[in-house]
Amino acid sequence: MLKVCIVGASGYTGGELIRLLLGHPHVQITGLYGTAEKDLLALFPGLRKLTDLAIRPADELPGEAQAAFLAVPHGQAAPLAARLLDKGLKVIDLSGDLRLKDDAQHEKHYGRDEYAKLRHEAVYGLPELNRAEIKKARLVANPGCYPTASILALKPLAHLAHGPLIVDAKSGLSGAGRTASATTHYCQVNDNFRPYNLGVHRHQPEIEQGLGQSVFFSPHLAPMTRGILATCYARVDGPVEELYLKAYQTEPFVRLLSGDELPQTRATAGSNFCDIAVRYDAERKLAVVVSALDNLVKGAAGQAIQNLSLMHGLSETEGLLLPALYP
Amino acid sequence: MLKVCIVGASGYTGGELIRLLLGHPHVQITGLYGTAEKDLLALFPGLRKLTDLAIRPADELPGEAQAAFLAVPHGQAAPLAARLLDKGLKVIDLSGDLRLKDDAQHEKHYGRDEYAKLRHEAVYGLPELNRAEIKKARLVANPGCYPTASILALKPLAHLAHGPLIVDAKSGLSGAGRTASATTHYCQVNDNFRPYNLGVHRHQPEIEQGLGQSVFFSPHLAPMTRGILATCYARVDGPVEELYLKAYQTEPFVRLLSGDELPQTRATAGSNFCDIAVRYDAERKLAVVVSALDNLVKGAAGQAIQNLSLMHGLSETEGLLLPALYP
Amino acid sequence: MLKVCIVGASGYTGGELIRLLLGHPHVQITGLYGTAEKDLLALFPGLRKLTDLAIRPADELPGEAQAAFLAVPHGQAAPLAARLLDKGLKVIDLSGDLRLKDDAQHEKHYGRDEYAKLRHEAVYGLPELNRAEIKKARLVANPGCYPTASILALKPLAHLAHGPLIVDAKSGLSGAGRTASATTHYCQVNDNFRPYNLGVHRHQPEIEQGLGQSVFFSPHLAPMTRGILATCYARVDGPVEELYLKAYQTEPFVRLLSGDELPQTRATAGSNFCDIAVRYDAERKLAVVVSALDNLVKGAAGQAIQNLSLMHGLSETEGLLLPALYP
Amino acid sequence: MLKVCIVGASGYTGGELIRLLLGHPHVQITGLYGTAEKDLLALFPGLRKLTDLAIRPADELPGEAQAAFLAVPHGQAAPLAARLLDKGLKVIDLSGDLRLKDDAQHEKHYGRDEYAKLRHEAVYGLPELNRAEIKKARLVANPGCYPTASILALKPLAHLAHGPLIVDAKSGLSGAGRTASATTHYCQVNDNFRPYNLGVHRHQPEIEQGLGQSVFFSPHLAPMTRGILATCYARVDGPVEELYLKAYQTEPFVRLLSGDELPQTRATAGSNFCDIAVRYDAERKLAVVVSALDNLVKGAAGQAIQNLSLMHGLSETEGLLLPALYP
Repeated sequence: MLKVCIVGASGYTGGELIRLLLGHPHVQITGLYGTAEKDLLALFPGLRKLTDLAIRPADELPGEAQAAFLAVPHGQAAPLAARLLDKGLKVIDLSGDLRLKDDAQHEKHYGRDEYAKLRHEAVYGLPELNRAEIKKARLVANPGCYPTASILALKPLAHLAHGPLIVDAKSGLSGAGRTASATTHYCQVNDNFRPYNLGVHRHQPEIEQGLGQSVFFSPHLAPMTRGILATCYARVDGPVEELYLKAYQTEPFVRLLSGDELPQTRATAGSNFCDIAVRYDAERKLAVVVSALDNLVKGAAGQAIQNLSLMHGLSETEGLLLPALYP
Repeated sequence: MLKVCIVGASGYTGGELIRLLLGHPHVQITGLYGTAEKDLLALFPGLRKLTDLAIRPADELPGEAQAAFLAVPHGQAAPLAARLLDKGLKVIDLSGDLRLKDDAQHEKHYGRDEYAKLRHEAVYGLPELNRAEIKKARLVANPGCYPTASILALKPLAHLAHGPLIVDAKSGLSGAGRTASATTHYCQVNDNFRPYNLGVHRHQPEIEQGLGQSVFFSPHLAPMTRGILATCYARVDGPVEELYLKAYQTEPFVRLLSGDELPQTRATAGSNFCDIAVRYDAERKLAVVVSALDNLVKGAAGQAIQNLSLMHGLSETEGLLLPALYP
Repeated sequence: MLKVCIVGASGYTGGELIRLLLGHPHVQITGLYGTAEKDLLALFPGLRKLTDLAIRPADELPGEAQAAFLAVPHGQAAPLAARLLDKGLKVIDLSGDLRLKDDAQHEKHYGRDEYAKLRHEAVYGLPELNRAEIKKARLVANPGCYPTASILALKPLAHLAHGPLIVDAKSGLSGAGRTASATTHYCQVNDNFRPYNLGVHRHQPEIEQGLGQSVFFSPHLAPMTRGILATCYARVDGPVEELYLKAYQTEPFVRLLSGDELPQTRATAGSNFCDIAVRYDAERKLAVVVSALDNLVKGAAGQAIQNLSLMHGLSETEGLLLPALYP
Repeated sequence: MLKVCIVGASGYTGGELIRLLLGHPHVQITGLYGTAEKDLLALFPGLRKLTDLAIRPADELPGEAQAAFLAVPHGQAAPLAARLLDKGLKVIDLSGDLRLKDDAQHEKHYGRDEYAKLRHEAVYGLPELNRAEIKKARLVANPGCYPTASILALKPLAHLAHGPLIVDAKSGLSGAGRTASATTHYCQVNDNFRPYNLGVHRHQPEIEQGLGQSVFFSPHLAPMTRGILATCYARVDGPVEELYLKAYQTEPFVRLLSGDELPQTRATAGSNFCDIAVRYDAERKLAVVVSALDNLVKGAAGQAIQNLSLMHGLSETEGLLLPALYP
């Protein structure tokens, strides 16, 4: 059994890591850590009778763990990563601390820090793009939820596009994390739909980095708990469906829809799949690609476990071939 | 035009007072007050182009207002009421400060204070029970949302019941106010249903006071923004429908449903009506009464305006005969 | 009092017409009509105690009405319009029967019919574009909900755009009408988000007609009852904010948001406003315009009443300056 | 591997059986059957890439299956059960056809049929009550969703209660099945809460049968997809917590909450657990018991699999120790 710990176990992503790893046949959670000791069952009442784990203070890190998931806020992850790498652990960082390779972009969106070297070492953990590098990595920067949906949707055609790509993305509220705020208050969200941070979200440079193209990114909040659906627009000179077949037909967690089918977030809820459909409007020379995934799974915890397995030579799909909860 | 002010204009109840009073033909809002100056349109974007009012500091109170609505948190209302009554205003307090006539119950649920005298003067502002007293009052304690639904549902039969009455109430989240917390986080509420404070909610003694009977009160949170539905149980020796006809057939804001119809919260959303249906199970000698209302309207702001009109000799229904937003 | 009737009173749009007209000081509903007699209060329980109207068979049409709203399904409206115009009524058709001026487009999306002449007479009822013509019309084709949001969002800049405009629209379920289907089943919609009819929706040619430009239209279903939010993209060579100020600053029902504010559907729920915000990304030469409205009000019944008032010389805002129900 | 088939695979319960059995290490689905051949992936898009099964015509039944789950509508199950028992299969019927032992009650609620003998043979499949009988059964009547929540909540105290027990239950919409109707239309459910069938629901006699006591049952529809929360009231002469500890502390799928914890439906979503909390109000001599479960899992498919395992000597918890999807 591979022994792993989760740092930042009290958040939604931490909870998903626990949920998924409890069902993984070859991985054992040896420690949950947080800045404060909180009652795990009060945070995740669905875990009652399924685990005896408790959240312990971060200074007890890393215990007997061989690998660590960092599900802590931006700014806290990089120093932790440095410390745990020094102790010989492999590290998967789910924060934004180590994703952007361009130092100026990183500083603009996350502030200045002293971890540029670590950032340049970290492999961007999107298996569909970087599987070989992930296998060899000791440090992986797990992609953001929006970038996972956007890059998977656009990568096969990005090099063919004229002008900026457009990603119109709609997300459930769990992407905002567990912290209470005016934005996450039920009455401000329920039966409501709104955009935010149009063109200025810090996931925009992450998407551009992944695609190697200029992108305009429009995030929106939809009244739902889980799920991202990205509707992406690209001006291209001809049909692109073949490129998607070629890119994804052997990918275990990308499902290309055909015929009239279109993605819906609910078909991915709780699962590690990313569903994609492609349309081409010949009259307008416009490709429209829609992707859907669960922001907490393929957009965070599930992909992190996929990376863990790759880094340790385990089967990439182990513990992750779960159907969505539908309806 | 009757000139009124609203103290505590930034909360949901304050917003409803503004929404409803903007359509009232005989009332003019002369001031909105809050402890902090906030941008009214950021708080209530639906008011854009409909009012030039802004929230002013409470120390400018009362301006030219003849009456005041207090929509501030418990503890802040009583001292404000005392001060504004001294200046000759009539006052409608929407907090819990002045509702409980039993001093021990008040202290248990709201803490000790120095306003017992004011509390004993305040008329409990449920027009269907206390219309005559309200008309003569200079100070009205506007009922809580749950008590309005519960007392209207049970008053006609309460004197006939054997043993404790049971009120199983389900509320939308706007009843919890605008303050962000773990309880109001969208992801904790959406697609979820839960009870809280079973038998220990401070509205229980208020309901008992209104009914003159022992009551067990079970509040629950339903994943919706507005609305309370109370399913009430009483052991009685025979049918009670006639008592409801007698009590409510001339009431402008109580709608007795007949035949197979049962209340639903959406039929009252945004309106000042309370819908009630009565069932009697002869085999089990059990009366079941269901009531539904909008907690922010008949359960708060609408009823407060109803009280204002009664206190000032205006038509009780003026400005309040609005249909629900349905669906 | 202007006497009007509503044909197709059992649907959601019919219900909104009733709700809004009950509060209109200069209009009286003299008849509600439907193919079957249904119990109005079972359909719209929020109307209890507010009206004695009942739905009557369509063959009793038009009674004493001077104008008629047609809220019937596509295909049924045009023949009704012809018949009622013959009887001297003014007609506002809320269906799609009379909107498309291009006969080939009409036939493609709605099927062949014999009402081309009527279609060419009908004025497209978007007051912000065609106010003068509406005032003189006896027949108005009320715009679709998506086209209202899309055309208002893009009209000021459409003539400047390079390449096709993109409208990524998100709608609540009331736009699908009251008919039960797999698409409208609660469990298929709740906590889910999905696109449909990408690039093939019949509102696409209606938007193109209104803008005089090529448009790609992407509709999506959001888990909410009311509201459309359209995020629109156009490649233009420079800032466009000034054009919007010029176009809309005197419009009573368009609210231009400034600074950081962005539209949200809830701020328009139940109201006749369309909120619009404009962004320009100079680096990518991309204008992004977001509009939000209530599909049943500014997208249907409210706009129809606005048209009625224009056609009869009444104040355009009469009965329609209602704040949104928020939250 | 135990070979099983699912009859009625297109409904929500059928889908849950598939979802759960795909993860069961000792059970293999050898056939899915329905009256019409439908595309499994259109019905359950979350199953894409996880199964090659397709829905086949019922006349191909039973193939090589050793046991059958009947997830068909009431009336269709009993004849199927008879036919499959004759072929030597064990049968778990998830419909109401075989639950009520009292012939008059059965006829009243489900109509007259010729399967009284089968009904008397069928073991009521609530493992916490009838584990020993289930182990020996070839035919199990799987309990209804409401009865599972209600009987588990009240069984330990039912024999002590004075007067009728009251069950105030709140259910998500998946309990209504996949069929589209006015009741299940999104706009009639969203942001709404309503009771139905008060005291006349056919689950009332099933609950009374399970408890051996008179029960008043009040079902309500809550705006959520999954979950039942039952708030139950019983007049008893003293505390009852000990009875619950005794009844449930060794049960694998009942979780007794202690201290301030109360059940919430979301903590059981997708899982086979039933959460229960007990309160006693000494002043009013009233016990209040709250239970929560997922109506499609412990209230249907999960419990059916639990029964399958018991009937075949497999571990009762195999394949069912899944955490809820939370949030």
